[in-house]
Amino acid sequence: MITKAEINLIKSLDRKKGRSERSLFLVEGEKLCGEVIESEFAAERLYHTSECSEELLRAARSAGIGLTAVSEKEMERISMLKTPSKALMLVKIPEYGMDDKEILSGLTLALDGVQDPGNMGSIVRTADWFGIRNIICSPSTADIYNPKVVQATMGAVTRVKVHYADLPSMLEKFASEGLTVIGTFLDGVKITKADMPSEGIIVMGNEGSGISPEAARFVGKRLLIPSFPDGASHAESLNVSVATAIICFAARFRDKI
Amino acid sequence: MITKAEINLIKSLDRKKGRSERSLFLVEGEKLCGEVIESEFAAERLYHTSECSEELLRAARSAGIGLTAVSEKEMERISMLKTPSKALMLVKIPEYGMDDKEILSGLTLALDGVQDPGNMGSIVRTADWFGIRNIICSPSTADIYNPKVVQATMGAVTRVKVHYADLPSMLEKFASEGLTVIGTFLDGVKITKADMPSEGIIVMGNEGSGISPEAARFVGKRLLIPSFPDGASHAESLNVSVATAIICFAARFRDKI
Repeated sequence: MITKAEINLIKSLDRKKGRSERSLFLVEGEKLCGEVIESEFAAERLYHTSECSEELLRAARSAGIGLTAVSEKEMERISMLKTPSKALMLVKIPEYGMDDKEILSGLTLALDGVQDPGNMGSIVRTADWFGIRNIICSPSTADIYNPKVVQATMGAVTRVKVHYADLPSMLEKFASEGLTVIGTFLDGVKITKADMPSEGIIVMGNEGSGISPEAARFVGKRLLIPSFPDGASHAESLNVSVATAIICFAARFRDKI
Repeated sequence: MITKAEINLIKSLDRKKGRSERSLFLVEGEKLCGEVIESEFAAERLYHTSECSEELLRAARSAGIGLTAVSEKEMERISMLKTPSKALMLVKIPEYGMDDKEILSGLTLALDGVQDPGNMGSIVRTADWFGIRNIICSPSTADIYNPKVVQATMGAVTRVKVHYADLPSMLEKFASEGLTVIGTFLDGVKITKADMPSEGIIVMGNEGSGISPEAARFVGKRLLIPSFPDGASHAESLNVSVATAIICFAARFRDKI
């Protein structure tokens, strides 16, 4: 049985204001709920239908997470998904600082205004696949705890740290400490010809306007994903999550291909 | 001034049934409408607000396309977009056959049940970027003329031919003619180590279930996109449009990286 207050609370988490006020976000689906329970995230409550797997309920119980059984009708009311799942969980928004040493010694993504929740989620999932532990986002970038973004990460939200900060000053700081800042531009060097550093920050821009001039000032390495046949394609650009993936792949396996 | 019958016609094009019955689909936005006018597609009518660029109206006029001025309120009613644009166009669904010779001598994509319109549109856009002229889709794959897919292709819909066919028989036919059929599987050879043929068909599967067993039978080259650090990532998979892009990139630039 779910109370009206709980329904209102859950519905408020669809918007950033609601999430910030309550420091909570939503995850849905048995698989994703299971991954969150296994992660360092703190879950507050699991709402589940009678169809929910006993395995997930056991895991939640032994993690000390409160359980609330709901009917399928109730789940339909609280779910953000088109096809409501069997499990919906309230999770504390984690607080983590930026580990400068980790960033200086690894590969990091920076997102400058990526807007589409599907793109944002896909980028976090790609970062996870390619062992990128940190993503620095401008405040104009989609919120990682937006339910659509969380679902699109397919669990990567529990493994990749997403920071929101003033992006130009962050890039300035890390560039001044010697880190390579990479961005893609039409006048860049083809990634098939450029050296790809194993440490650095890869900046990806907004779907429509690309990297902002304020952030572009600190890009030291301007790259380009070549089209095929080289230069003869009529296509003007790639989707931002696709471009991010190709650059991450090239950065990770440049010398091994 | 737009009639009620026209509004109903336009609204019917949001569904596949409506599109099939009328052999029409919708494109929105001045840029995309302009690209369609320049392409071999036949546009039937352009609905535009008073804000629409004179350049687009001129292009439509000289292509013999009927113009209908609509108010912003009317555009809001007929638009499929959250932010209605200044131009919406009715376009004839083109009829094109499959050119076997073109497919036997080039790189082709095959989609086996890709469902999400954003993924589908992004894949067509990526194909365009990498000079892939044909995509063969199983009937279970998202419809290329779904308005969300059309918009996500960013114009690539006018340059890439998307065919719907019984996919296993198509793969069987082309494999028997000597074409390499490529698919990604967890037990595949890393694309960083495998030979990538410059001709072939790359099969990509459904978001949840991957390549169907019926199509998988004809995959002769099983590949894998490596994660980083190699094999140590907790991530289980990549988004299908991202995976498609990485494989296309590797196929096109394998020897040049």
